[in-house]
Amino acid sequence: MRTRFEPHCDEIRLTAVFHALSDPVRLDIVRQLRADADVACSTLCADMPKSTRSYHFRILRESGVTRTFIEGAYHRVVIRCDDLDSRFPGLLEALARASEPV
Amino acid sequence: MRTRFEPHCDEIRLTAVFHALSDPVRLDIVRQLRADADVACSTLCADMPKSTRSYHFRILRESGVTRTFIEGAYHRVVIRCDDLDSRFPGLLEALARASEPV
Repeated sequence: MRTRFEPHCDEIRLTAVFHALSDPVRLDIVRQLRADADVACSTLCADMPKSTRSYHFRILRESGVTRTFIEGAYHRVVIRCDDLDSRFPGLLEALARASEPV
Repeated sequence: MRTRFEPHCDEIRLTAVFHALSDPVRLDIVRQLRADADVACSTLCADMPKSTRSYHFRILRESGVTRTFIEGAYHRVVIRCDDLDSRFPGLLEALARASEPV
């Protein structure tokens, strides 16, 4: 079984978070997750090849933006709101308030 | 003379801003510029090759994070605080409050 790396809260780097959010697909995923906190990976970017989707979810997870829960065949992804608010107060709120469409 | 591209306020893309801030050198430049708004390019990252420094300043400028004023041989860089606050309210403040060292 592959280890699924997720940084501890105090290991989350701002540059890694910005890198994760610098891609339109990942930014859209984060916005969808903020709108619906309980969603399966498979329903996000459903029109995308699985390998591409997995890549984007890995970047989000390894940066510390998201956490993945595996429940059988069901992969559930959530934004690490508490950790991000603790490390970078106001960042998620700023993201929600950004005026542009993706 | 080369054209120095700087996007209009409403052309600034959040993903481009995040990309600009995803590099430790550029994040450090932005933090230094916030601490001292009137600083010459040459005094920032003074130990870095000029070409590398120019590259980072170009990414910051083209993303809309900074504006460059050329006064003779003196290149002055400022953060586009008003534009960024207008497009992405709270983002610069979140950056200032981020708890990690670069």
